[in-house]
Amino acid sequence: MTRIARVARLPMAGPDDVSGIAAMFADGTLDASALVAILGKTEGNGCVNDFTRGFAVQSLRALLGQHLAPDALARLPMVMSGGTEGGLSPHWTLFWVEQSDTPATGEKALALASRITRPLHPSEIGRQAQAEAVRIGVLEAMEDAGITGPEDVHYVQVKCPLLSAERVAQASGDTATDNMLKSMGLSRGASALGVALALGEIEAFTDDAVCSDLSLWSERASCSAGIELMECELVVMGNAPSWAGPLRIGHSVMADAIDAPAILRLLAEADAGAHPQGATDRIAAVLAKAEASTTGEIRGARHTMLDDSDISSTRHARGFIGGLLAGLVGRTDLFVSGGAEHQGPDGGGPVAIIYQTGDLP
Amino acid sequence: MTRIARVARLPMAGPDDVSGIAAMFADGTLDASALVAILGKTEGNGCVNDFTRGFAVQSLRALLGQHLAPDALARLPMVMSGGTEGGLSPHWTLFWVEQSDTPATGEKALALASRITRPLHPSEIGRQAQAEAVRIGVLEAMEDAGITGPEDVHYVQVKCPLLSAERVAQASGDTATDNMLKSMGLSRGASALGVALALGEIEAFTDDAVCSDLSLWSERASCSAGIELMECELVVMGNAPSWAGPLRIGHSVMADAIDAPAILRLLAEADAGAHPQGATDRIAAVLAKAEASTTGEIRGARHTMLDDSDISSTRHARGFIGGLLAGLVGRTDLFVSGGAEHQGPDGGGPVAIIYQTGDLP
Amino acid sequence: MTRIARVARLPMAGPDDVSGIAAMFADGTLDASALVAILGKTEGNGCVNDFTRGFAVQSLRALLGQHLAPDALARLPMVMSGGTEGGLSPHWTLFWVEQSDTPATGEKALALASRITRPLHPSEIGRQAQAEAVRIGVLEAMEDAGITGPEDVHYVQVKCPLLSAERVAQASGDTATDNMLKSMGLSRGASALGVALALGEIEAFTDDAVCSDLSLWSERASCSAGIELMECELVVMGNAPSWAGPLRIGHSVMADAIDAPAILRLLAEADAGAHPQGATDRIAAVLAKAEASTTGEIRGARHTMLDDSDISSTRHARGFIGGLLAGLVGRTDLFVSGGAEHQGPDGGGPVAIIYQTGDLP
Amino acid sequence: MTRIARVARLPMAGPDDVSGIAAMFADGTLDASALVAILGKTEGNGCVNDFTRGFAVQSLRALLGQHLAPDALARLPMVMSGGTEGGLSPHWTLFWVEQSDTPATGEKALALASRITRPLHPSEIGRQAQAEAVRIGVLEAMEDAGITGPEDVHYVQVKCPLLSAERVAQASGDTATDNMLKSMGLSRGASALGVALALGEIEAFTDDAVCSDLSLWSERASCSAGIELMECELVVMGNAPSWAGPLRIGHSVMADAIDAPAILRLLAEADAGAHPQGATDRIAAVLAKAEASTTGEIRGARHTMLDDSDISSTRHARGFIGGLLAGLVGRTDLFVSGGAEHQGPDGGGPVAIIYQTGDLP
Repeated sequence: MTRIARVARLPMAGPDDVSGIAAMFADGTLDASALVAILGKTEGNGCVNDFTRGFAVQSLRALLGQHLAPDALARLPMVMSGGTEGGLSPHWTLFWVEQSDTPATGEKALALASRITRPLHPSEIGRQAQAEAVRIGVLEAMEDAGITGPEDVHYVQVKCPLLSAERVAQASGDTATDNMLKSMGLSRGASALGVALALGEIEAFTDDAVCSDLSLWSERASCSAGIELMECELVVMGNAPSWAGPLRIGHSVMADAIDAPAILRLLAEADAGAHPQGATDRIAAVLAKAEASTTGEIRGARHTMLDDSDISSTRHARGFIGGLLAGLVGRTDLFVSGGAEHQGPDGGGPVAIIYQTGDLP
Repeated sequence: MTRIARVARLPMAGPDDVSGIAAMFADGTLDASALVAILGKTEGNGCVNDFTRGFAVQSLRALLGQHLAPDALARLPMVMSGGTEGGLSPHWTLFWVEQSDTPATGEKALALASRITRPLHPSEIGRQAQAEAVRIGVLEAMEDAGITGPEDVHYVQVKCPLLSAERVAQASGDTATDNMLKSMGLSRGASALGVALALGEIEAFTDDAVCSDLSLWSERASCSAGIELMECELVVMGNAPSWAGPLRIGHSVMADAIDAPAILRLLAEADAGAHPQGATDRIAAVLAKAEASTTGEIRGARHTMLDDSDISSTRHARGFIGGLLAGLVGRTDLFVSGGAEHQGPDGGGPVAIIYQTGDLP
Repeated sequence: MTRIARVARLPMAGPDDVSGIAAMFADGTLDASALVAILGKTEGNGCVNDFTRGFAVQSLRALLGQHLAPDALARLPMVMSGGTEGGLSPHWTLFWVEQSDTPATGEKALALASRITRPLHPSEIGRQAQAEAVRIGVLEAMEDAGITGPEDVHYVQVKCPLLSAERVAQASGDTATDNMLKSMGLSRGASALGVALALGEIEAFTDDAVCSDLSLWSERASCSAGIELMECELVVMGNAPSWAGPLRIGHSVMADAIDAPAILRLLAEADAGAHPQGATDRIAAVLAKAEASTTGEIRGARHTMLDDSDISSTRHARGFIGGLLAGLVGRTDLFVSGGAEHQGPDGGGPVAIIYQTGDLP
Repeated sequence: MTRIARVARLPMAGPDDVSGIAAMFADGTLDASALVAILGKTEGNGCVNDFTRGFAVQSLRALLGQHLAPDALARLPMVMSGGTEGGLSPHWTLFWVEQSDTPATGEKALALASRITRPLHPSEIGRQAQAEAVRIGVLEAMEDAGITGPEDVHYVQVKCPLLSAERVAQASGDTATDNMLKSMGLSRGASALGVALALGEIEAFTDDAVCSDLSLWSERASCSAGIELMECELVVMGNAPSWAGPLRIGHSVMADAIDAPAILRLLAEADAGAHPQGATDRIAAVLAKAEASTTGEIRGARHTMLDDSDISSTRHARGFIGGLLAGLVGRTDLFVSGGAEHQGPDGGGPVAIIYQTGDLP
């Protein structure tokens, strides 16, 4: 038996529109128990008071609860990223695994595995201890997925906990910060550094470096923080020889917000010509991070994202980089998320694509 | 004597930062009396309560008043477009004309001329009469610039009046609308249709068609409305045989918000390879229109720009399309403006570039 | 058996926080089948893309579905109003009825009844036919509640349908508008005029007058539009002799956004001194409408609410009027909602309070 | 000769509308050299990218430059506060002094004086040294104004410098912070503590306490920070026996955002009945500070101002408290500003009124 990784993008008419997923369950296209992860791009502001994420998860749980036992449901990573600025389109991306009789050909194909770390203690959040837990989780998920080396990992999604007043009290104040918003950044940052450790991108770091030494980063981590968990949920995506099917994954790093060449080099994996929109139909998913450079400049020209008190810089960045990605890919249902501490260089960010090889059906 | 058109982009640290222009006056690079037009991309919201435009104009007038007589100052078109969403960079673009002893080579080069129409009566705003005045003005400016045919015109900037309560009263209510905001759209639309008439893009239209028959549009008009004038100010840009210098202008039309191929075809005029960022140094100016498609979709995928009550759709569109343009051009000081009634197809828009041929200095 | 109307305000930690209601079910304070209506003030923007309302309703339905049969759940009016601008506090207000052995004293007490009209045809929305259906519903609900005359009705909450593209098509285009946002205003307006008809505040109106003749209004209607229904849901609140208990309801009309005297006159019903904050503990609920005057002025001074392209005028108005109400009442969990077509005079609006008489417990 | 303090409020049609002031110069009502200070409430967002303040100042300077010598113009405090949320109305408030032959009656009347401190060194900003400079300036201004004791001072407006990257470098990094936004808060805070020292409201403080020990505050300071100066500009307002005229000033402190009783106690100075709107015509100016409580609550009920990523909490607070003040005063042209570090208690703030005694003209 060989495993085949499957990916589907489904439009979302609103955060509670799970009709596309329900239809796949109804017609037998998708077996809920085969799901490895669900990503959602919802149409909120992606900031503190974005309730579209919780609304989407509540809607997913109501549907999936009809098909999965509570513990299986609890173990399924559901990562919602708010913000479809500009022309980005709200959508779900489903990741699942099918079994096939076809033997693997030896050519590496898309491989997926998820993992949940031990619960963290509040005092560990945003510090080395969190990174170490993530590091171990990534290595374990790689093994589950049969990924044979770190160079074959192209995307690691992490959902990690944050600090609340209650949790700070629980740790008698021995926490990385007592500010909830700051703890989200620190937790994302520590998670990203854990991925970087697992993949050999960095060798070590100190607690002080989290969110301060921006020279340390992973080019394959994508992290988000949520209040509803104390563990870290991981989804590792790479290419592995024991998997079959036409899907592959690759990644690139945008050096800044207008690094079109980096995106085109990546698209060249799916389309030899590296033509903008040359591979539109072959692209199964685009997973990217966007953020405003802290220097206030892009190639020496001032940007105004950090000074705009009407629109959050994260919203500016998603729309702007989303526009470039959409134009090059030829489609707008892309998973572009913000909050990129230690996830790519300052003002730039990682981009991963999952694409189809061979003849299109 | 041959005319040479010159273009300079200057960064702006804020709407009142005219220091770059003052420096050009001080060191003799620029003679104020040679100016044909000044465009500014300012960092406001680009909507009703955007005071960065007025602040920029007031700052320009204070500086230019030291170098120009009042009537010359009054005749100089200054068009401010608010909104530097995403990574767009606030800047000035100066257009001026120099005289040269070098005879024209016969190769067409960038040619510029401005024109001010007769004052409109309030009852004419947003109707055929306005378009007719613009049509005549465009033809006159083409003649001034020595542009020999409509196919050589690539960009027409129009600044046109709007209706206020007072002006509606002046026309005893016989106006296209009594709503100020609507009158801005109708005036921009009628101006664009006037450009389309002058350039042979359409043959005729009725008053009813303004802002309603979206199949009528110019691919070379860029119009903005302002309360401070009753005339229409025009700047026509094209290529003409009687001009010299290394600058040329071309244009293209984006069919939708992610039409990267249209932009690359245009960039190919400056860089034979049509590589993204292949011509960065050759591009003197990028002049584009951006807007959200009224269908609520881009290539069949829903966008949320029109439903977002926190951010105006015009801000979303500028940031998104600005991101694509900036990535392909390789720079962020681009003149991307909104409000594109009859200026390109619904959801798409015209893009013009001014670029340098021959060896770079 | 006498009926006693009960009201409870419960804080809401987020749109999905129904824990306070669940606790009342758990400790027997509240029997779900006794509920007449639930109002919620949620923390979204109160505009088109406010998903906190749907999230709150989904959360309520999940909880109530454990206690009510589907058809009873379907008949329970749940009206969510988004927007807690300024210091307003997100909260639920529950309305229910208890039976008592105590005979009524003849003194009128708070009386409640809800009603659902027949389903409207899309062609009826925003027109006289809708108002007529509302008029009949109000009269029927008054009868159910034993309210003996229109002067005893002090608040009518209406939730009414809106037009979608599909519904416009269903009516072959014979609808009051084909614009969804406009249809919300027209539907709220027609509902308010229906209330006004029922209560004798107006005698008749034509379809043309909806949202255009602002001299027609009810001082007791509060209407909201939602896409999920084709009927109109009504909740009528007044005082009736056949009810018992310490609660009473009264109302007043703010002539403009700063009409503190109108609020104090109303508060005098609960506190003879009409002192600001004199009756804080006696006030069970405050139900108010807020909106920006279309004249652009308040008592001759310009306001900027309608020109602010960063913040919707409805958000400005709720925060501003909410501040005045909160200061006079002495509490911030007030139901202040926007969208006040034909609900009070332009720029002003109705305010109702439910208050406790007699000795406080 | 006796001094009479004069105050005028003038509407502003936009940040550049100085026509009302020009008219007063033209008809001789106002002599520019008599001006002590100009406050402006402009219609921007009141945050980092609010250019309405600079636009207003540029417009004022252009007008005043026609009437004042450059050094007199440079010494005139012009304090612009952005943000007319809710129904607040953009306006100017002018303060000037007239000489009169009438001898003072011995009854204390409104007294004004301004002062400019020595230039601060960047290392002093946000620290005790700044507070000490402010303390001395307040005492000197009190002496200039003939105010005989601290209890007669009711309002001190301070405009103070902030830190930029350049200024931090100038101090070789020995500054209170290297973050520009933070330096604004620290500078406002140190200024307020300087006022508190001068008026005997506190006895001492350490650098650490600035913006951290919220138990230290002045109930008469109103501070704003601007990049254009290195001095602190002060305007002290109080009552003094050597002045004449019908104007008086008083102040109160709102304990929280809904402290209507505190406002009414203050209004009682102008209207014995302390009726809301009882003294509307007697009120010459209302000067208040507004801010969101850092606890996230008002009297135990949650507010959402600090969690709203679409609207700054300062905008929420100004609109909400502005609504209460406007309702109680009966007018909307009030000077309500944000950023209240050490200026009143957390979540509350000082309110001063200037009112007219005696018979109205």
